Amino acid sequence: MSYNLLKGKRGIIFGALDANSIAWKTAERVFEEGGTFVLTNAPIAMRMGQIDELAKKTNSEIIPADATNIEDLENLVAKATEILGGKLDFVLHSIGMSVNVRKGKHYTDQNYDWTAKGWDVSAVSFHKTMQTLYKQDAMNEWGSIVALTYMASQRVFPNYNDMADNKAYLESIARSFGYFFGRDKKVRVNTISQSPTATTAGQGVKGFDDFISYADKMSPLGNATALDCANYTVSLFSDLTKRVTLQNLYNDGGFSNMGVSDALIEKFSE
Amino acid sequence: MSYNLLKGKRGIIFGALDANSIAWKTAERVFEEGGTFVLTNAPIAMRMGQIDELAKKTNSEIIPADATNIEDLENLVAKATEILGGKLDFVLHSIGMSVNVRKGKHYTDQNYDWTAKGWDVSAVSFHKTMQTLYKQDAMNEWGSIVALTYMASQRVFPNYNDMADNKAYLESIARSFGYFFGRDKKVRVNTISQSPTATTAGQGVKGFDDFISYADKMSPLGNATALDCANYTVSLFSDLTKRVTLQNLYNDGGFSNMGVSDALIEKFSE
Amino acid sequence: MSYNLLKGKRGIIFGALDANSIAWKTAERVFEEGGTFVLTNAPIAMRMGQIDELAKKTNSEIIPADATNIEDLENLVAKATEILGGKLDFVLHSIGMSVNVRKGKHYTDQNYDWTAKGWDVSAVSFHKTMQTLYKQDAMNEWGSIVALTYMASQRVFPNYNDMADNKAYLESIARSFGYFFGRDKKVRVNTISQSPTATTAGQGVKGFDDFISYADKMSPLGNATALDCANYTVSLFSDLTKRVTLQNLYNDGGFSNMGVSDALIEKFSE
Amino acid sequence: MSYNLLKGKRGIIFGALDANSIAWKTAERVFEEGGTFVLTNAPIAMRMGQIDELAKKTNSEIIPADATNIEDLENLVAKATEILGGKLDFVLHSIGMSVNVRKGKHYTDQNYDWTAKGWDVSAVSFHKTMQTLYKQDAMNEWGSIVALTYMASQRVFPNYNDMADNKAYLESIARSFGYFFGRDKKVRVNTISQSPTATTAGQGVKGFDDFISYADKMSPLGNATALDCANYTVSLFSDLTKRVTLQNLYNDGGFSNMGVSDALIEKFSE
Repeated sequence: MSYNLLKGKRGIIFGALDANSIAWKTAERVFEEGGTFVLTNAPIAMRMGQIDELAKKTNSEIIPADATNIEDLENLVAKATEILGGKLDFVLHSIGMSVNVRKGKHYTDQNYDWTAKGWDVSAVSFHKTMQTLYKQDAMNEWGSIVALTYMASQRVFPNYNDMADNKAYLESIARSFGYFFGRDKKVRVNTISQSPTATTAGQGVKGFDDFISYADKMSPLGNATALDCANYTVSLFSDLTKRVTLQNLYNDGGFSNMGVSDALIEKFSE
Repeated sequence: MSYNLLKGKRGIIFGALDANSIAWKTAERVFEEGGTFVLTNAPIAMRMGQIDELAKKTNSEIIPADATNIEDLENLVAKATEILGGKLDFVLHSIGMSVNVRKGKHYTDQNYDWTAKGWDVSAVSFHKTMQTLYKQDAMNEWGSIVALTYMASQRVFPNYNDMADNKAYLESIARSFGYFFGRDKKVRVNTISQSPTATTAGQGVKGFDDFISYADKMSPLGNATALDCANYTVSLFSDLTKRVTLQNLYNDGGFSNMGVSDALIEKFSE
Repeated sequence: MSYNLLKGKRGIIFGALDANSIAWKTAERVFEEGGTFVLTNAPIAMRMGQIDELAKKTNSEIIPADATNIEDLENLVAKATEILGGKLDFVLHSIGMSVNVRKGKHYTDQNYDWTAKGWDVSAVSFHKTMQTLYKQDAMNEWGSIVALTYMASQRVFPNYNDMADNKAYLESIARSFGYFFGRDKKVRVNTISQSPTATTAGQGVKGFDDFISYADKMSPLGNATALDCANYTVSLFSDLTKRVTLQNLYNDGGFSNMGVSDALIEKFSE
Repeated sequence: MSYNLLKGKRGIIFGALDANSIAWKTAERVFEEGGTFVLTNAPIAMRMGQIDELAKKTNSEIIPADATNIEDLENLVAKATEILGGKLDFVLHSIGMSVNVRKGKHYTDQNYDWTAKGWDVSAVSFHKTMQTLYKQDAMNEWGSIVALTYMASQRVFPNYNDMADNKAYLESIARSFGYFFGRDKKVRVNTISQSPTATTAGQGVKGFDDFISYADKMSPLGNATALDCANYTVSLFSDLTKRVTLQNLYNDGGFSNMGVSDALIEKFSE
């Protein structure tokens, strides 16, 4: 589908790794909707991914940037506005990584250096990105910034480890910075809290398949896919949602407001 | 603006009274986006309004219905699908009325017959509408139902009176019925919690101008307008939001997540 | 245990039916803590219950009252203050009943007369009680009013039927009336959202045993018992919680903030 | 008042600085209720405070500890159980500090080294404390851990700066660790979200007096005091709240559920 919803809009998309990434799908959809953008990812992530293919497909340039590094971000934002020919209308932050998860450290036995690293990459990077955009005055009025999050920020999912706390911090940044970005530049800032999605990143989490199946059974419309998330993001980048800000928006087939489902109880009663 | 987002989609729009109504603006925007629909309102409201003008403008028919009356609703749904040539893709419920508010009865001195009447009109009508749609199997898969609500359902706004409780009930219906509508027919159900809006209906509430100004000062992007709400509703009727369901979505310039704003403290410190 | 937490405090306890009732346990605990009170229940419920036994045990009188009937409530409040020798310090509202549930009517096939009846008994009765207390100026400053609710008000529990919507309305009343009661009389109003509890009333809900087991497995501390609820209510009636108001407080072993538990996934993965 | 609610219970109280501290009031109240405890604070904070006076008053020992330092925490927990003669029943975490706030750095112009320092002190210290308690198996079954937080974690208070995000992270830790502490040791973990309080620490925030007055006018019962918070904490340490866990509990005179108050609109309309 294509509606030209983002015609004439420019932006930056963080975090496209491969065709399973939500950011990848979003880039494809934004392109279809007429938006132009720069792709970015950490140098190390880019080596593992196939981002060149995406760049070609969407006529976009790639600017590598470590999102925890202010100089990298300053360079990214400066170059992006130059390449795209003006201020930005949208930014997608899709970055998350926990060293404790990767190395199999339990939540009750954290290595706090790793905790700090994951927090910086997964959460503070969002603040750094916005602070850079804000200082360079790089966003157009009524622009839209979206970060991806997960409901573990609000409720317990035991295997999500310190990513839960990182996402809580991320969502708080969206509100805190969103206030100043709204007040001063008329820019909106929201997070999308997505169903568990079988991305390459998601696969690090223990027992993920059972969990995806559990979430699907709990959700009256089933789990939202990466494409669903891309579409929802497009709606938040478009002019249809100009006064929606500071929100944490669930794209999850209804999971977040379920206490129990018939399908789950049935499975449970077996 | 027009993106053909709703091309080929059919629906029912409740509650358009005059050009100030959110439902009126929504009808105009849905029409611009290629949707076809039937307009409906209570016979008594229609006499006061200018709905004929809207019908002409949007090539739509009007079917009067008292939304508390099951027979009226059955007739409405049956005729709408007949007129529009198929099952429905979207429904907007924009109905609210408190007799206690109208007659100036304080919340601590309710007339409970009036409370019951307001509850039936403002809240149960949404259940009755969905029950009728569900029983007639009148919604297409991936259809979308939206009801308008107000944040008084979740936090205290003293002058909102028993409408606060009615809206809490309405939002609960959205979740409760949304589960079954999602599970059985893949239909999504959400509520939009809108900024205070200077509609003809809203004008009944005491001190409304000061309150609108207060909300505006609290919101980093200012109060959302009726047109903003219409646009947001269009996004929720479109295929961009297929797995968003059971949600109460704030379209309010950020008000709902504010504790205090600089503008408010400044006014307060004078 | 006994701490004399409620020494010198007077109140009314609604809804004690038999020894399984939360209200029954609460009456016992309040008595142990030195509080004096009047017991009340609907005449029809009293015939089925063993409330006389409780009255004897707690040195309390019984005043029958239909909580949907204003005259009954006026009589109750007037007599209670007379019998107890002064204004009241605490009130427990523990009343809920859905005719649709009792008669096996599905949520998507409601009989709306029954819906109205259940709403009046389960939710509006709380407003009527507070309006009566407020008008008679029957509460002492820093008094405490508690109503029991269930999380179906906020999330979907399919078998809870229209009680979910009633509880949402009840919780809204707590906030709405709580504001005026706080502002004008310094009285606090809260709801306790309790784990599913095997009371005589709870037994009407379909598949209740499986559901109780599910909730228990989801909750890190297991389901809260009726006695836990009685103790929590005592803390809310005491002077330890004087500025806690308008809150919906979960007494549920942690269920409300769980997304999934290891115990549940284990069962699910079998 | 004194009810012997905490007779025989042992614990640790972090963060008592001077007689304005919430932790100071809590220590006094816990002592009155029969609890025994060890006081702790950062060496640097102790030099500025009058904690010796409190120790004398409450027959308690002081063990200095930097709550960001694992070795200090290990020593603290080991010594505390030794001094008190057994495992612990309660812990109060009342620690918060933002270097960005202290040095007048605006939220949109953070120094990220300072951000990291504030995060470690204000939020991660809570994880470190619990991890140490958990690993040493130092808590009794049905023990209770409480951390103090502020609503800026959930809604925007512009001057709260990065403390907002730290408190969001802290509240998430309470849920995340609370799950494991509940499941494995039957210990409950909650946060109290307190009214703005004129502590020595709170005085660092800009425009604090106006803000306290604003919050007071918004709250139907007025702002909760430090003593109110101490009392509420006592109730959470007591056996009255054994199955309350993973909760963020507002002790704020009702502020958190207010949209607007009459007093505020009156002031606003002047």
